[in-house]
Amino acid sequence: MSTFAHTPQPPYYAVIFTNQRSAGDHGYERMAEHMVSLASQQPGFLGVESVRDADGFGVTISYWESLEAIRSWKANEEHQLAQEKGKTAWYENYKTRICKVEKEYSLQEV
Amino acid sequence: MSTFAHTPQPPYYAVIFTNQRSAGDHGYERMAEHMVSLASQQPGFLGVESVRDADGFGVTISYWESLEAIRSWKANEEHQLAQEKGKTAWYENYKTRICKVEKEYSLQEV
Repeated sequence: MSTFAHTPQPPYYAVIFTNQRSAGDHGYERMAEHMVSLASQQPGFLGVESVRDADGFGVTISYWESLEAIRSWKANEEHQLAQEKGKTAWYENYKTRICKVEKEYSLQEV
Repeated sequence: MSTFAHTPQPPYYAVIFTNQRSAGDHGYERMAEHMVSLASQQPGFLGVESVRDADGFGVTISYWESLEAIRSWKANEEHQLAQEKGKTAWYENYKTRICKVEKEYSLQEV
């Protein structure tokens, strides 16, 4: 089940990855799990929130300490292979936005 | 069906609203639709992306020209009523993050 990311006091960074899956799995589920596990081992990783609806439309937001941490993760060799597969097989379309989180508040602290 | 927001060249702002719905509707669906419609009429509104899974975990990201536009929308009277209802009836928990979008790229322009 999806959960909230326990991020620290801002400022920190977010990568908003909005995407539409194409039909069929093509190894996606296994790789997606592996990528979350691999990302969480990278320096500067703060957390991830991910949700997909029944139509295959999804948003995954990963949180990072710095732009440098985001660049390193983008350049990771296994992640590069996954990005390539994403372009050719898994996604009809996607949009990636790199953001600086300036403020955060909760209904209750989680 | 959910879609991508057609945002302009950065910089612009994003409000990431991560939330867990409580059980039951309590007027939520009708109000949620109305809020999207109302938000889209506000000055500085750029778009919205929203997705919820079968467990009631959701992410809604609204995009705005400026922090001033976000502040005005937060202060909107009808929106204030919805925020109050959100706290007391609709959400088990939520987290709101205010971000500056610094960079954006797509698989294909949508």
